[in-house]
Amino acid sequence: PPASRSPEINDRLTMETPDSRQARLWERRKLADARIIGQFNNTYIICEGNDALMVVDQHAAHERIAYERLAAARKNNARPPSQKLMIPETFDLGYRETAVISQMTDDLGTLGLEIEHFGGNTFVVKSVPTLIADREIKPLILEIAEAMDAFGYSPGLGAALDQCIILMACHSAIRARQSLSMNEMKALLDQLDQCENPRQCPHGRPTFVEWPLRTLEKNFKRIV
Amino acid sequence: PPASRSPEINDRLTMETPDSRQARLWERRKLADARIIGQFNNTYIICEGNDALMVVDQHAAHERIAYERLAAARKNNARPPSQKLMIPETFDLGYRETAVISQMTDDLGTLGLEIEHFGGNTFVVKSVPTLIADREIKPLILEIAEAMDAFGYSPGLGAALDQCIILMACHSAIRARQSLSMNEMKALLDQLDQCENPRQCPHGRPTFVEWPLRTLEKNFKRIV
Repeated sequence: PPASRSPEINDRLTMETPDSRQARLWERRKLADARIIGQFNNTYIICEGNDALMVVDQHAAHERIAYERLAAARKNNARPPSQKLMIPETFDLGYRETAVISQMTDDLGTLGLEIEHFGGNTFVVKSVPTLIADREIKPLILEIAEAMDAFGYSPGLGAALDQCIILMACHSAIRARQSLSMNEMKALLDQLDQCENPRQCPHGRPTFVEWPLRTLEKNFKRIV
Repeated sequence: PPASRSPEINDRLTMETPDSRQARLWERRKLADARIIGQFNNTYIICEGNDALMVVDQHAAHERIAYERLAAARKNNARPPSQKLMIPETFDLGYRETAVISQMTDDLGTLGLEIEHFGGNTFVVKSVPTLIADREIKPLILEIAEAMDAFGYSPGLGAALDQCIILMACHSAIRARQSLSMNEMKALLDQLDQCENPRQCPHGRPTFVEWPLRTLEKNFKRIV
């Protein structure tokens, strides 16, 4: 376990309530039952499943977890947990970005991202979803502006907000090339198992791939 | 690390002399430089190579190491280190096996396996190669008899002795489904690296396979 890691990731990964955990615990335990062997390339979690070597993409997995939490909150018309910034963050955007984001302040508010158009090209962020509390906010806003410009945003459009949630999930997720402790890996797999769709990140990339034991035995010519 | 393991494997794995080690240390360090992640299915050693996930078959790897040691001894006309049995082991063989093994006692002696034909179908084993000191000897003798019967043994035939060495290496090697400590895995990889042909066991099976990082990135659609 790296000494330099803050405890934030563990906190984030174990944010789900004990109740929602309990409810799903018996449905699927594919990953939670796997034995973690270790981390590869500081990017992939290697585990021993029932009859396969499993490789989990830590970023894609965490993205899926974060996405389902944000989506669940939106479905319940609940603002996801958010956090007031001690010092509101002020930044300027370009002309096109300003045009998009200035229309989005209400919608972003419902996602826990409280942003105000200060006038001109200047915006002030006052609260952010807890999930991304430790991340830089401006790169996320720029990506949202770009995506919505391409998508054709109009206020209250559900599909547009879903895109925003995906971007938030991506920005909240642990990165590739980040060392994780055994406990962090365990927490990640437990929570991925509890997702509706644990197999894909919200962009449709796989969260894990498997190398069946039989295939491995064939690779080694142990069986034909 | 399993509590029930004797230290014999480590001893066996580190039997090579410091000098021969030193000589080759700088030539190839593919496996020795890999970081061991852990063991899969108590059979495969998973490691992180320079740009690949590597999976080593512990039995095939150990077989290769044992084989090269036995073959090197034979090349130098040196008997490999052998060990007198405190209580010589006596057993009976079948008719065909007796016919083969009774002709082989001299040749087996040069391989460190001192066996005497006691009369009738009875044989007495007095010394065994140190490499297989902790293994049952009769199953090895039976396999040698069967292989030589098929091969067409005649005394002093080099190719026949090579087959015997392969069988000895196989019987000496750690099995699949055996838990190894980190130190045992490390010793195994270090010594495999020092082999002339570290990529194949003496039967021609691969000792390790690799999953290149690029392939893995493609599997996860991180790259196209």
